[in-house]
Amino acid sequence: MERVLQFTEEHEAFRDMARKFFETEVAPHHHEWEKVGMVPKELWKKAGASGLLCPDVPEEYGGSGADFLYNVVVIEESSRSGNSGFFVSLHNDVIAPYISAYANEEQKKRWLPGCCSGDSILAVAMTEPGAGSDLKSLRTSAVDKGDHYVVNGQKTFISNGQLANLVITAVKHENGTISLVMIEEGMKGFERGRNLEKIGLKAQDTSELYFNDVVVPKENVIGKDGQGFRYLMMKLAQERLVLAIAAVEATALVQRMTLKYIKERMAFGKKIGSFQHIKFQMAEMATELEMCRTFVDKVVSEHIAGKKLTVEASMAKYYSTEMQKRHTDLCLQFFGGYGYMMEYPIARAYLDARIQTIYAGTTEIMKEIIGGSLGL
Amino acid sequence: MERVLQFTEEHEAFRDMARKFFETEVAPHHHEWEKVGMVPKELWKKAGASGLLCPDVPEEYGGSGADFLYNVVVIEESSRSGNSGFFVSLHNDVIAPYISAYANEEQKKRWLPGCCSGDSILAVAMTEPGAGSDLKSLRTSAVDKGDHYVVNGQKTFISNGQLANLVITAVKHENGTISLVMIEEGMKGFERGRNLEKIGLKAQDTSELYFNDVVVPKENVIGKDGQGFRYLMMKLAQERLVLAIAAVEATALVQRMTLKYIKERMAFGKKIGSFQHIKFQMAEMATELEMCRTFVDKVVSEHIAGKKLTVEASMAKYYSTEMQKRHTDLCLQFFGGYGYMMEYPIARAYLDARIQTIYAGTTEIMKEIIGGSLGL
Amino acid sequence: MERVLQFTEEHEAFRDMARKFFETEVAPHHHEWEKVGMVPKELWKKAGASGLLCPDVPEEYGGSGADFLYNVVVIEESSRSGNSGFFVSLHNDVIAPYISAYANEEQKKRWLPGCCSGDSILAVAMTEPGAGSDLKSLRTSAVDKGDHYVVNGQKTFISNGQLANLVITAVKHENGTISLVMIEEGMKGFERGRNLEKIGLKAQDTSELYFNDVVVPKENVIGKDGQGFRYLMMKLAQERLVLAIAAVEATALVQRMTLKYIKERMAFGKKIGSFQHIKFQMAEMATELEMCRTFVDKVVSEHIAGKKLTVEASMAKYYSTEMQKRHTDLCLQFFGGYGYMMEYPIARAYLDARIQTIYAGTTEIMKEIIGGSLGL
Amino acid sequence: MERVLQFTEEHEAFRDMARKFFETEVAPHHHEWEKVGMVPKELWKKAGASGLLCPDVPEEYGGSGADFLYNVVVIEESSRSGNSGFFVSLHNDVIAPYISAYANEEQKKRWLPGCCSGDSILAVAMTEPGAGSDLKSLRTSAVDKGDHYVVNGQKTFISNGQLANLVITAVKHENGTISLVMIEEGMKGFERGRNLEKIGLKAQDTSELYFNDVVVPKENVIGKDGQGFRYLMMKLAQERLVLAIAAVEATALVQRMTLKYIKERMAFGKKIGSFQHIKFQMAEMATELEMCRTFVDKVVSEHIAGKKLTVEASMAKYYSTEMQKRHTDLCLQFFGGYGYMMEYPIARAYLDARIQTIYAGTTEIMKEIIGGSLGL
Repeated sequence: MERVLQFTEEHEAFRDMARKFFETEVAPHHHEWEKVGMVPKELWKKAGASGLLCPDVPEEYGGSGADFLYNVVVIEESSRSGNSGFFVSLHNDVIAPYISAYANEEQKKRWLPGCCSGDSILAVAMTEPGAGSDLKSLRTSAVDKGDHYVVNGQKTFISNGQLANLVITAVKHENGTISLVMIEEGMKGFERGRNLEKIGLKAQDTSELYFNDVVVPKENVIGKDGQGFRYLMMKLAQERLVLAIAAVEATALVQRMTLKYIKERMAFGKKIGSFQHIKFQMAEMATELEMCRTFVDKVVSEHIAGKKLTVEASMAKYYSTEMQKRHTDLCLQFFGGYGYMMEYPIARAYLDARIQTIYAGTTEIMKEIIGGSLGL
Repeated sequence: MERVLQFTEEHEAFRDMARKFFETEVAPHHHEWEKVGMVPKELWKKAGASGLLCPDVPEEYGGSGADFLYNVVVIEESSRSGNSGFFVSLHNDVIAPYISAYANEEQKKRWLPGCCSGDSILAVAMTEPGAGSDLKSLRTSAVDKGDHYVVNGQKTFISNGQLANLVITAVKHENGTISLVMIEEGMKGFERGRNLEKIGLKAQDTSELYFNDVVVPKENVIGKDGQGFRYLMMKLAQERLVLAIAAVEATALVQRMTLKYIKERMAFGKKIGSFQHIKFQMAEMATELEMCRTFVDKVVSEHIAGKKLTVEASMAKYYSTEMQKRHTDLCLQFFGGYGYMMEYPIARAYLDARIQTIYAGTTEIMKEIIGGSLGL
Repeated sequence: MERVLQFTEEHEAFRDMARKFFETEVAPHHHEWEKVGMVPKELWKKAGASGLLCPDVPEEYGGSGADFLYNVVVIEESSRSGNSGFFVSLHNDVIAPYISAYANEEQKKRWLPGCCSGDSILAVAMTEPGAGSDLKSLRTSAVDKGDHYVVNGQKTFISNGQLANLVITAVKHENGTISLVMIEEGMKGFERGRNLEKIGLKAQDTSELYFNDVVVPKENVIGKDGQGFRYLMMKLAQERLVLAIAAVEATALVQRMTLKYIKERMAFGKKIGSFQHIKFQMAEMATELEMCRTFVDKVVSEHIAGKKLTVEASMAKYYSTEMQKRHTDLCLQFFGGYGYMMEYPIARAYLDARIQTIYAGTTEIMKEIIGGSLGL
Repeated sequence: MERVLQFTEEHEAFRDMARKFFETEVAPHHHEWEKVGMVPKELWKKAGASGLLCPDVPEEYGGSGADFLYNVVVIEESSRSGNSGFFVSLHNDVIAPYISAYANEEQKKRWLPGCCSGDSILAVAMTEPGAGSDLKSLRTSAVDKGDHYVVNGQKTFISNGQLANLVITAVKHENGTISLVMIEEGMKGFERGRNLEKIGLKAQDTSELYFNDVVVPKENVIGKDGQGFRYLMMKLAQERLVLAIAAVEATALVQRMTLKYIKERMAFGKKIGSFQHIKFQMAEMATELEMCRTFVDKVVSEHIAGKKLTVEASMAKYYSTEMQKRHTDLCLQFFGGYGYMMEYPIARAYLDARIQTIYAGTTEIMKEIIGGSLGL
């Protein structure tokens, strides 16, 4: 069956290139990076040179001025290769858009070209210890000193936390409103905690960030002062859709590797894929994947068309990530003891999958949003 | 979010008419018909007069020559009204197509006008006691007597079994091949068993049929002799899609009635819809319904475009009917004791839903097909 | 594996007798009673004569002075026979205990002998329209008139509602406290509504009851005035355990009939029980049943020993009834189209099972209790 | 509610001692051992000195001659402490029993004292690459050379594979029968592969073992030659029960740590444990745990009494380990982002849990056994 998203020949050519990039520049080195706990900065520059960073940014700011489907291609090919360390979609589709949408002309010129070339790596610092998804409890403070703010506070679970040199940071004013300010590598008082040890995403750096009397010039405020909460909310739909696209593709990868395995692996004189129990579960998973992909594609296509789809994006994020987690677990079981061994890709897929239902809004938060939209 | 299926203004006008028909001619009498065990023949004629029967049959045979989306509208509005007794989609979308596709010109002229007007009611007699979905075990025999066949055998679970006056019957030749023959009301030796007592579908007649030396003229063979198995197989995808469309709409109805109830019903001083447990389950069900509808719509749209989608139709049938069963059960629970009382529509919905995962190919058969398509 | 409950030879002899009673006096007539909507009063007398009613009531009040395991035997054999119309456990184990525990000597002498002989049939009238399990919303009022109360109000979902001649009724005083009063057949102003039409339990009468200025002498107050709430609460654990025992046995019956069917029924040239999908599901269900029975037995044995086990009884009720519902649904599927036909016992089992997770405290109420016991 | 297993005061005193041992000698060092990939040999000796190794071995062979409930205490306290690296139950309850049951007097005197003191660490080498649980495909060969065998082959997934100095090894004779032989550290041609990198059990060494022309004197054959298959089968029930006991206790630990967390952690101004969604899931998990523990206890008590309970042990293993996996996953979700961080014990619990449904017979194998016992 055809996909809902209509990729042109140009998109497919770009996809071929992207696929090759992930197959040659990412996949073979991933295991190495897992040991180090992050990817090399050089990788970001290579990706930039290949046009994989922020393809939708206008040419005047260093991008390709491409439509969002190119971004979708990058997300899909990243997932398809099994990549989880090089968090390109966070950079391209979650954080850069804050700059594109809310920064002023001067800021765009200052920051976007580096984002496109890979010289700059982005992070967004929202979550704080003890606050989770609850922006109202935010404590990182920005005290107005005329032409600059003095920022104090602490953030946690910051993806790209070790690598990022541009950190969009949510800060609270004395009047309780929130602003987004760009905190740059090298600013005095901005320090990174250690690289957090996680269940998975081993090649992806996640850190605490500390701000001690960091002087942030007002030129680094993104958009209007005090509008940070609204800005963060407005980009959530895209963030969730991006995760949904990745989750669908990651599920497809897991199903593919499992299908291959169960067609080869013998037990009790038969290919294990011929056992009805396994066959039926593969059938169920294939069905769910097709359904979910069709739905996500449809939401993405309407998102591109400019519709506001908070609820549908929440549905897509919740369902696709729960599916990824569940299917990866079911598939691992078919590998028997080998599934538990890190040398089998299914093992890493299992570890990487577990964060999906938690970050960028837990499944529970998604259900609150969806339930709320029903008037409950 | 917009639906994948693109209904025009004409379709929507037809939908308004259909909705009114089901609301006035069907819904208020349904309870009465449940007691009788079938709908009145008169209803079929009213539906025919309103253009609800076989809209896609060409005008020369008494239809409207409409596109299949009109049929989709009828299926949806039927489900939406809670109707389960007037089995119009079986007639329109499952059985009439055998005539349209395989019958010869003379036969079409003979049979289709009655199907469109409601003077003829269709049934298809395939299943036999002890054979289930397994066509290879078919026993009803057709012995060649030159210009006619003599048919002997027994069928079971035949929907419209009491009302039908035209029964497309699968018979086996001495050489083991299968033909479809039209057995007509009034043929000597054709008898109906009692109206079977079922868990639900109380207003829908389901019967055993008996054939004792029924003389069937060869003019009543549909299509080529011996091709019956192939014909039956070729129409299965549409049959399954039709059930999927109905299942999606039935699920929507159940969710709607439940949403209304939980917003009104109080317990422990709160509207029960405000309990997080119920809110989350409604959110889950709403998500699944959106996903499933999008998928079914997509498959239907490609089916209309002429694609062969055996696997996708199986996915759609399996998933949508399991969803309908599961959601109806979950929703009933929220009604507490009232959910168990037949005067509440959720109770009948529960009873009607249970057949869905069984007929027209059980969920297990669907999984065999899907699993097979994966090479398992 | 041996059961946790230690039945002696005497219990087993009683079980043989009970089994024969249900097999001969109940099972063959059940279908007939389903049409009528209730069992004959004569059946109650036969059961009384056989010692199946209130075996644990002391001999001086007409019982056998037996231990509670005899009651357990009656519950199990009732379920085992597929009986759902003759609601003996409600009479024996839920309602009679109010009299035994809280009534005074005179009342016991007045009421219990009839309960044991079957001349009296008990009901308890607690639930009201709009109040559900929420006793605080009770509206049926008792106005003090010196030597009697005048009772006004309405009850719903009253099991044995048509047959009962002794109805323990929860009434509210002007000061907001609750009393239990015995309302007797024939009291002026006490009327029964119609026999409610339910999804299942077709041979079991369930009714609304109406009280219009019913004069209830104070001699009919059970226990202390104003203690009704406490009395109702104290007997809940036993009521829930009784339902759990019945649910376990009903699940066992369904598994047994399904096992028999799938060992006989052929499809695609094999016994369907040999399909791995079915085999695994039967294995899962057998496991769950063993676990649940062991747990319920253990709770019952401690209940008999006098332990207060509110939480464990809630666990037992919730889990066993959800299991019964789930297993019955899964098993029905294996019967294919036959499972949907009322002539197959699995169909009635399906209909009867649906109430289990609702009455006597819904699954949701049970989870509130259990969650509360965890300090949540 | 009281447990089914009746621990005496002596058992409880032993439990106190064991608890202290795990709390002081194991838990604080576990994280360190995870980095190393195994526990120190010294730990085994300390455990031996404390009487925690093979308590049920008769005093004449260096044990305490205790009943099996002491072994149960060790299993429970090990799980309770969160230990997964020090695989004492494998040693005590799975492998030492082969020696106790099948070895001759000379062998018992030779091997058991070391097992009790911790000077010897046991492994069992059954699984081979490509064979899984399927003993019929065993390839490791033993060629008869008169007074010794020459063993060649390869084993995989061998727990305690790096530490063990006594390895009970399943070998195949030329006539196709299987024997168990004791292969000892230092035998020429016996080599260990690297310590396998696993999803979890990071402090537990798992290895491939290689046998190249290893000369094994016939004095090292355990029991009768050619009876290995039967011996392995006969001890499986105990192995599965041991895993079930551990799984129950591990689930209890996870529930306890989660309960603590959700009573402290705030979100949206409330303790997250007060959200009904979480409360209900905790209630469900508490129920299932109680049920499962009661069942496992009952099976263990009958196992101790000498009953042969292959099916019940399979039920216990399958259900308890699936429960552990499922509950650990559900609980982790409540920790939000913290659940994904390795510094939170729930994270390690998640990783350790995943092997449980796989080793010592996968869930699928258990269902085959259970289904088979139903005659399917």
